Amino acid sequence: MTDPTWPQLTLADLHASVDDPALTSMTLLNDIVGRYPSAVSFAAGRPFEGFYDVDDLPRYLSAFRTHLQDRGMAPEEVRRVFFQYGRTKGFIHDLIARQLETDESLTVNPEAVLVTTGCQEAMILVLRALFRDPTDVLLAATPNYVGFLGAARVVGVTVRDIKEGPGGIDLEDLERQIREAKAEGLRPRACYVVPDFANPSGVSLSLPDRVALMELAQREGVLLIEDNPYALFHSAGTRLPTLKALDPNRQVIYLGSFAKTAFAGARVGYIIADQVVVAGDGTESLLADHLANLKSMVTLNTSTVAQAVIGGYLVENGCSLERATKREAGTYRRNLDVMLTGLAARFSHERGRPDAVSWNAPQGGMFSVMTLPFRADDALLEYSAAEFGVLWTPMHHFYAGTGGFHQIRLSFSVLTPPEIAIGLDRLAALIEDRR
Amino acid sequence: MTDPTWPQLTLADLHASVDDPALTSMTLLNDIVGRYPSAVSFAAGRPFEGFYDVDDLPRYLSAFRTHLQDRGMAPEEVRRVFFQYGRTKGFIHDLIARQLETDESLTVNPEAVLVTTGCQEAMILVLRALFRDPTDVLLAATPNYVGFLGAARVVGVTVRDIKEGPGGIDLEDLERQIREAKAEGLRPRACYVVPDFANPSGVSLSLPDRVALMELAQREGVLLIEDNPYALFHSAGTRLPTLKALDPNRQVIYLGSFAKTAFAGARVGYIIADQVVVAGDGTESLLADHLANLKSMVTLNTSTVAQAVIGGYLVENGCSLERATKREAGTYRRNLDVMLTGLAARFSHERGRPDAVSWNAPQGGMFSVMTLPFRADDALLEYSAAEFGVLWTPMHHFYAGTGGFHQIRLSFSVLTPPEIAIGLDRLAALIEDRR
Repeated sequence: MTDPTWPQLTLADLHASVDDPALTSMTLLNDIVGRYPSAVSFAAGRPFEGFYDVDDLPRYLSAFRTHLQDRGMAPEEVRRVFFQYGRTKGFIHDLIARQLETDESLTVNPEAVLVTTGCQEAMILVLRALFRDPTDVLLAATPNYVGFLGAARVVGVTVRDIKEGPGGIDLEDLERQIREAKAEGLRPRACYVVPDFANPSGVSLSLPDRVALMELAQREGVLLIEDNPYALFHSAGTRLPTLKALDPNRQVIYLGSFAKTAFAGARVGYIIADQVVVAGDGTESLLADHLANLKSMVTLNTSTVAQAVIGGYLVENGCSLERATKREAGTYRRNLDVMLTGLAARFSHERGRPDAVSWNAPQGGMFSVMTLPFRADDALLEYSAAEFGVLWTPMHHFYAGTGGFHQIRLSFSVLTPPEIAIGLDRLAALIEDRR
Repeated sequence: MTDPTWPQLTLADLHASVDDPALTSMTLLNDIVGRYPSAVSFAAGRPFEGFYDVDDLPRYLSAFRTHLQDRGMAPEEVRRVFFQYGRTKGFIHDLIARQLETDESLTVNPEAVLVTTGCQEAMILVLRALFRDPTDVLLAATPNYVGFLGAARVVGVTVRDIKEGPGGIDLEDLERQIREAKAEGLRPRACYVVPDFANPSGVSLSLPDRVALMELAQREGVLLIEDNPYALFHSAGTRLPTLKALDPNRQVIYLGSFAKTAFAGARVGYIIADQVVVAGDGTESLLADHLANLKSMVTLNTSTVAQAVIGGYLVENGCSLERATKREAGTYRRNLDVMLTGLAARFSHERGRPDAVSWNAPQGGMFSVMTLPFRADDALLEYSAAEFGVLWTPMHHFYAGTGGFHQIRLSFSVLTPPEIAIGLDRLAALIEDRR
């Protein structure tokens, strides 16, 4: 024991996922953002925190305790729920099933619900379970949520990029690539989809495309992994059904999150996995139970305190997230409106110019995407922050380096209308400067 | 969309880890135990819950909030800590470093501490990071903790079984197998060790063996993964230093857990990874930061509410777990004494008989192991529960089917002395019956 530098590990000696390029690029990005704390930030994808109150937490705990007592649990049983190792599938599965019934008209067997340590763990579990070997192929639209790409990387699953248009995932490209993969002897196993206000692009799938996607998946024997963190934050008008609500044949594994509704720090999400799994001896079981087996080796059960807090939040709001998030949804709707109006006021007179900027107009969510007549990379972001005091996210971070070099993501979830106005003025000045 | 049974998944089509044999055997075991709720159970490895009080939880939250305020945090910053996505490495890392200084005389750089979703996630992260490809070999004593074997399975790492003797991991066998692996062209990457009161065997490493193990690992270039959930629960006398306390050269990655000290449901653990990682361009970084990268793709940050509760618990107890767990440690010590005295009273007169039972005498922890003159499998457990009203754990579950068929694990953590006495009487009756 004499060499104080032993063991010197090398990065090349560690598993490739610790040095994931998407992650490294997000780290660089966060570093730039972090160095300009007083800039107006269209970069932050966080939920609005103005309605949070630390005093809510003990009240949620207490509401959940009362809920357990009302169900006839003895004090020692309640204590055990709060403090001990517990049911791997979680203990707020029934409340989640009620919430889905209330908000999504979705009838779910509570036994098919697996409570997870945030939606991130849900992705890890689903990918680990479904992808048996390297012949299994995962499909997903590009640009894509970095957290999902990261989960695929940790589990060692290769993602096949599908084009995305203004109306969401390109169904023709999806069909073509499924067939190509099959022709290559691969098994297209599942396709990841965020049908409502996707991160980062903000786009949504129309109802006819939802139906067409379900039919395509059915025809080709491909499962759909539906991720739904933003659907409640739609602008006026009716909300479209989730894929899971259009799923009599159980093609859809549904991933849920409380990060944007209750709060992100809790790290509570869930999976609906009502698929039947048949063993060699013919025994049938729910996919949720196999995912629970995996979960017991990743994090055991989801934190009891976190579940109790989310449970109390659901109980207090009659198991309706629509009701619970009325104020937040109003804030996001207003901000989206201020954003789109502000963009139009500043840039719509340019229409027709060869170097005009353009932007999409999502019907909800937290993100909009702008296309610029020049390269918008990390260097420009640094310049934008230093010289103009405005931050945004270069879209190429969501393309794993394969595109998006003229696009930026504008997030408006944590800003006030005056901040949005100032930010857009600064953005306009940057654009003027770079032309 | 006409076939209501589509997609019918087959178990053979899923990743092998969802059907892990160790896990399946534990499920079967839990099923037997669950069917005899009124039996005296030496099977439960849970912490004693008599000192828990649901009212403690809001008090811990409040203590942690005060702690943040005392450090000069503004109310909006405190709110952000409780509710938002946060630092991936966690926000109670400094309190954990203080606890290690207080209880273990261990000086730890707080930046080398990564707070995890229980020790289970810690295992997943360390194994994923360290094992680059199939030539990397993991070494561990058998019998072994099923949660660790499960983590290895999820990550796809093969475990090489090392013999365990009454004094813990067999250092000669370890050295031999390291050399054999190297001769096979493999890289023995790390060895997993629980030096104090291992689960399931209860055995501990002596101080000379700790030093010898460190020297062996140093000589052979093998990292040590030290897991330390039970060390505080020693019987009278001095506690031995952790491997990490004997580690000037940073050979040891230390896994910590609050499951047996604060409470299991919180799901808060941590990793000390102070190893230096050198990138291709010579840049140096802490292994903890690379593990944090991985964590951001597995669960993002550890639940803020869970961290705050554990943080408050640490603050309330002056960052000493020794102080915080005085009552629990007293209970476990008393139960260990009752257990060993009870075994001696019932069975020591047999000594010398060819069909005598024997048992080990751990110096602490929650487990003791008994060797029987007949096969002790799940069928016998079922018989024991149904006919004699006593439950225990067949040791073969911890050997992945390769041994332990005449041994049983006796856990005494959740029982009262009268329950232990009744349980031992029933065990004696079972033994009499089977001879």
